[in-house]
Amino acid sequence: MSFLCKTTPERGLVWQARFAERLPDLPFRLWPDPKMAETRFLAAWTIPDALPQLMPGLEVLFSIGAGIDQLGLAAVPPSIRVVRMIEPGLVAGMVEYVAWAVLSQHRELFRYEADQRAGLWNPAPNRAPGECRVGIMGTGTLGGACLRHLAALGFACRSWSRRPSEIEGVQGFSGPEDLDAFLAGTDILVCLLPLTDDTRHILDRRCFSRLPAGACVVNCGRGGHLVARDLIDALDSGQLSQAVLDVTEPEPLPPGHPFWRHPRIRLTPHIASDSQPQSGADAVIENIRRYESGQPMIGEVDRRLGY
Amino acid sequence: MSFLCKTTPERGLVWQARFAERLPDLPFRLWPDPKMAETRFLAAWTIPDALPQLMPGLEVLFSIGAGIDQLGLAAVPPSIRVVRMIEPGLVAGMVEYVAWAVLSQHRELFRYEADQRAGLWNPAPNRAPGECRVGIMGTGTLGGACLRHLAALGFACRSWSRRPSEIEGVQGFSGPEDLDAFLAGTDILVCLLPLTDDTRHILDRRCFSRLPAGACVVNCGRGGHLVARDLIDALDSGQLSQAVLDVTEPEPLPPGHPFWRHPRIRLTPHIASDSQPQSGADAVIENIRRYESGQPMIGEVDRRLGY
Repeated sequence: MSFLCKTTPERGLVWQARFAERLPDLPFRLWPDPKMAETRFLAAWTIPDALPQLMPGLEVLFSIGAGIDQLGLAAVPPSIRVVRMIEPGLVAGMVEYVAWAVLSQHRELFRYEADQRAGLWNPAPNRAPGECRVGIMGTGTLGGACLRHLAALGFACRSWSRRPSEIEGVQGFSGPEDLDAFLAGTDILVCLLPLTDDTRHILDRRCFSRLPAGACVVNCGRGGHLVARDLIDALDSGQLSQAVLDVTEPEPLPPGHPFWRHPRIRLTPHIASDSQPQSGADAVIENIRRYESGQPMIGEVDRRLGY
Repeated sequence: MSFLCKTTPERGLVWQARFAERLPDLPFRLWPDPKMAETRFLAAWTIPDALPQLMPGLEVLFSIGAGIDQLGLAAVPPSIRVVRMIEPGLVAGMVEYVAWAVLSQHRELFRYEADQRAGLWNPAPNRAPGECRVGIMGTGTLGGACLRHLAALGFACRSWSRRPSEIEGVQGFSGPEDLDAFLAGTDILVCLLPLTDDTRHILDRRCFSRLPAGACVVNCGRGGHLVARDLIDALDSGQLSQAVLDVTEPEPLPPGHPFWRHPRIRLTPHIASDSQPQSGADAVIENIRRYESGQPMIGEVDRRLGY
């Protein structure tokens, strides 16, 4: 029984070397592999068709990304355990990206960029970070790390999540009943939620209308969190001043989609964070050891909640 | 004998209120004032012509900015003490700007911006911050704070300054004899030096040629640190991949200057940091108290060294 790694060739080679060194007794295979029926552990970004038939002995499915919505869990038998990727490189990358997006908005760097193209030298006084309210939806490993970083920079931070959470220096909101109060005091809204039936299309017309006029929306969750038409309307009406989108639906974003050319949308091609090959492999190796010894795995998904 | 504040009307009003509250016995005047001959303390960004004649009783000159090169010290009698602005808002603003510039370069966000305009979805794997070597010239209050922040984010940090300095987690270089070794291992070069006879035009052809090919230069010092023609040449030859300029010579940058339109120059209108009105006033009030009681003032300039 073996470990099967379904990923890019570059990442696969790093994982192969790491597994050879740290779990030498577990046969390691790279997708596609003729003996995939022997697979006991699978690491993948998306699962192959006919998974139960291809890998009848599969016990644990590891996501290579922080989310698991892209795996296609509906086709995964409920007995198979599913684990999200939690590793330091992925967290550090997201903190960097969110800090960049928040600083870009807070310091008016999107506006200065447009000014440069127009040949305008138009400095504005700086505002203190404490006057800028950053609200992060999602207080998991990624959201929590971003909140702690931004709070340390002096931003007025608030969080919203399904269940109450406490992060020092951060005002916590939770549940549907708190959502409007959370949004009403958020100048920069950052989505780091998992994509589930409850959170799909949460960034919609209603959400945008509850934010203060001129707010900024940063989506580092999934494209499915956002209603594209509602975003364009809110930007064009001035209700929102800026959007920063790292994720779209679908990906890659099709040519001609209005996001490409909108003057108030900054688009990046799903690069906010990815698991670093070596530390990502180490996180999975650690979880396999935990699984084999009956300990809880780090990042195991509650199949019922979907994250 | 009075305090004279020569600044923007907005900042002047904040300082006036702060001085009324905290130093009520010191007459506070806003420039221009008919009784300026009574001035004992002057706070300004640039000094007026004929300063010695206008204010024969001047004892201390406070800069409203972190630097003092713009004051015009050649016209200030050597007996007058000169103090730089050191206050938390100014430091926080610079840390934000430098973090934004370094993250933008490290995470390829300038490239993704160009990709968006070209309709390209072209994600690259993330590199760990430890693989990116950030070198800061200048280890004063601003440079030190930026180094500590970037080191905490995991960047491989190094510093260069006139005199040796020690900052935890930062590789220190100092003096002309260390400059080439410092530059040779710097992927992102940040200038936070004071502008003096020794540092004018330090960002020149020779400096750029010592950096690794493809390096990025961030100038948050003064426009006079940089040789504009040499920068354009280094960008056009590919020796540098990107420049981020917050300062130019002169300011505002004249229309038609090649910096405005260069695809690899990001230009901002001297906004990286400014002293925050309230905490800036507090810093000066504290220094006046120190001066009156014979204690050393924070940020006093060595007139011989020029910073």
